[in-house]
Amino acid sequence: MDAMVFLERIEGVRKVMEAKELDVCILTNRASLRYFTGLRMNTAAFSILLISQEEIEYVVARLDLKRAERDCWIKDIISFPEDTPDYLHVLNDFFTQWNQIRVGVELPELNYETYHYLQEKLANARFTNIAEEMGQLRTIKSDVEIKIIRKSTYIADMAMQEALKAAKPGMKEYEVTAIARYAMLKEGAENPSFEPFLASGENSWLPQRYSSDKALKPYELNLMDMGGIYQGYCSDITRTFSVGETTPEQKRLFYDVLAVQQETIRSLRPGISAGEVDYIARQAIHELGYGEYFPHLTGHGLGIDIHEGPIIDKGRTDILQKNMVLTIEPGVYLPGVGAVRIEDMVLITEDGYEILTQTKRNLIS
Amino acid sequence: MDAMVFLERIEGVRKVMEAKELDVCILTNRASLRYFTGLRMNTAAFSILLISQEEIEYVVARLDLKRAERDCWIKDIISFPEDTPDYLHVLNDFFTQWNQIRVGVELPELNYETYHYLQEKLANARFTNIAEEMGQLRTIKSDVEIKIIRKSTYIADMAMQEALKAAKPGMKEYEVTAIARYAMLKEGAENPSFEPFLASGENSWLPQRYSSDKALKPYELNLMDMGGIYQGYCSDITRTFSVGETTPEQKRLFYDVLAVQQETIRSLRPGISAGEVDYIARQAIHELGYGEYFPHLTGHGLGIDIHEGPIIDKGRTDILQKNMVLTIEPGVYLPGVGAVRIEDMVLITEDGYEILTQTKRNLIS
Repeated sequence: MDAMVFLERIEGVRKVMEAKELDVCILTNRASLRYFTGLRMNTAAFSILLISQEEIEYVVARLDLKRAERDCWIKDIISFPEDTPDYLHVLNDFFTQWNQIRVGVELPELNYETYHYLQEKLANARFTNIAEEMGQLRTIKSDVEIKIIRKSTYIADMAMQEALKAAKPGMKEYEVTAIARYAMLKEGAENPSFEPFLASGENSWLPQRYSSDKALKPYELNLMDMGGIYQGYCSDITRTFSVGETTPEQKRLFYDVLAVQQETIRSLRPGISAGEVDYIARQAIHELGYGEYFPHLTGHGLGIDIHEGPIIDKGRTDILQKNMVLTIEPGVYLPGVGAVRIEDMVLITEDGYEILTQTKRNLIS
Repeated sequence: MDAMVFLERIEGVRKVMEAKELDVCILTNRASLRYFTGLRMNTAAFSILLISQEEIEYVVARLDLKRAERDCWIKDIISFPEDTPDYLHVLNDFFTQWNQIRVGVELPELNYETYHYLQEKLANARFTNIAEEMGQLRTIKSDVEIKIIRKSTYIADMAMQEALKAAKPGMKEYEVTAIARYAMLKEGAENPSFEPFLASGENSWLPQRYSSDKALKPYELNLMDMGGIYQGYCSDITRTFSVGETTPEQKRLFYDVLAVQQETIRSLRPGISAGEVDYIARQAIHELGYGEYFPHLTGHGLGIDIHEGPIIDKGRTDILQKNMVLTIEPGVYLPGVGAVRIEDMVLITEDGYEILTQTKRNLIS
């Protein structure tokens, strides 16, 4: 992406800084860093972005310095030595100028020690949590981002379809999951967007949120949740399926949940609130008598983070807007019967929605 | 593993509590939780373990409750609602009894908000950081752990060998890495133990710590670092190789670094300090004239965490002991030539060492 794209994003930060009367921001959230720097980092690497109205300074580990200098649009890059507990000392020069200023930080992403260090170094500074504002800058996707998300979704779809095709009685949960994970990586996914899993039979309704060595068999429901990261952007899809016969109860549960999910998706449009969308799913599940077996949210926005705004859950007041991307994933977990969750990615359009995930919603794989 | 194994581990915590005069510990580090509960959790799941001299209480997300009740040796398990920011409120009952007591926490693993919450709820409590002590409990591996680590190492070896066999000129870095990742998952690895990567040519010496779409070609060195998690335990191996011809400089660099790595490994035995081992590698590299091109540590312990004690780096005073497991991985990154790092996992034995990783150290794949 062009440096202009990133400069526009930085303008967004600077507007937040003006509104919140901040002199400088210290960003440490990985999603923020990817969004504003454009630089892919190994998942174990740590970096820091400093933004004021005049300057932008990027602080990376020494091991990442040369690459950042080669690949990043930001020209002021400094490094801290790796494996030094006191890595923030490279910021001392800034801190000397910064006493008595107002600093924005992403509190949920700061560990206690870093926060404590900042407080000590900047004894007269006032800290403001801007984590939510930074997240909000990312909820409406640009055309370039939507194009990347489409490719990320394609990768997840393709991998899900390969896994569904491969799944047979006797195969282990982790073997099927491995096929999906490989399919994503082969297609250029950087990583899975979270730990993908297939939970079969009892594991589905417990639920067990990882793939074990349990073998698949008929008369059991299998719930598979997965997604990848392509050029920094996450995809996320869940399908529920059987590798053979199902009981009438399992069939009914499957088609009930599918109907609820489709009804919920049909409600999507700019102007509706996240809480209203959640209510549609929750109320429909309640009316089917499954009310107590739907223990999670109805959906969530996604982008650089696998979970970002808007969160589709009880009472949430966020208003859906054009070019938001989110999942709709109601689920019912019936002990002794099985769990059904069907999750699709949806783009909010001018006057409604477009379902991005294409994998068929079939009970039999 | 048997409940007795975990009870013995909890005894270790209680001895630390006695020594540090603590009434209760609140453990939140994922590695601690796996070590003391034995429960595998999806990488996105959060849980908390409370330990006093009399009680053990495990706190999990509502979605994980039934599975924890089925699979965990701990019988006192309570749950917090998912997606509630104030999830710690389930601990209020404890907090009411706990005012004016001494609490051990794992500070580096606590984010600011959680720490702040605890401080508010337990206004009269005294907090002590026990992160290092908890990590130290895991540095000497038991026979059962060593057996699992051998299998984890086998998986990494096998995957590395598949990748080396597959690597050909024209293949992209991420395609080769995908093969290694799939090989590990097929063999039952829970996940990679970190983000595996292959960095070729310029990417090796920058270094670029992820796999890109750059194609492999002769006269370039390729550095591949990877590992898996098997039954909770990490493996870690690096090989450097070429897919064709190499220059005399590249050859010399390869055999120089290999000699340094082997010399360093030969120094391993109970009683030597981590700093002395590091000095052997660093001094040898210095004498070869590569001193300024070795920008990282010489090695690290590993187990449930990919990096745990002992850290083999400058000035570290930890003394190596029987049944520690660690890596030795000196590396030299020469701009314009290439990078060479060779990393093996080593078990410290009664009177020396045993190299666990078996993949050959060949310049040509």
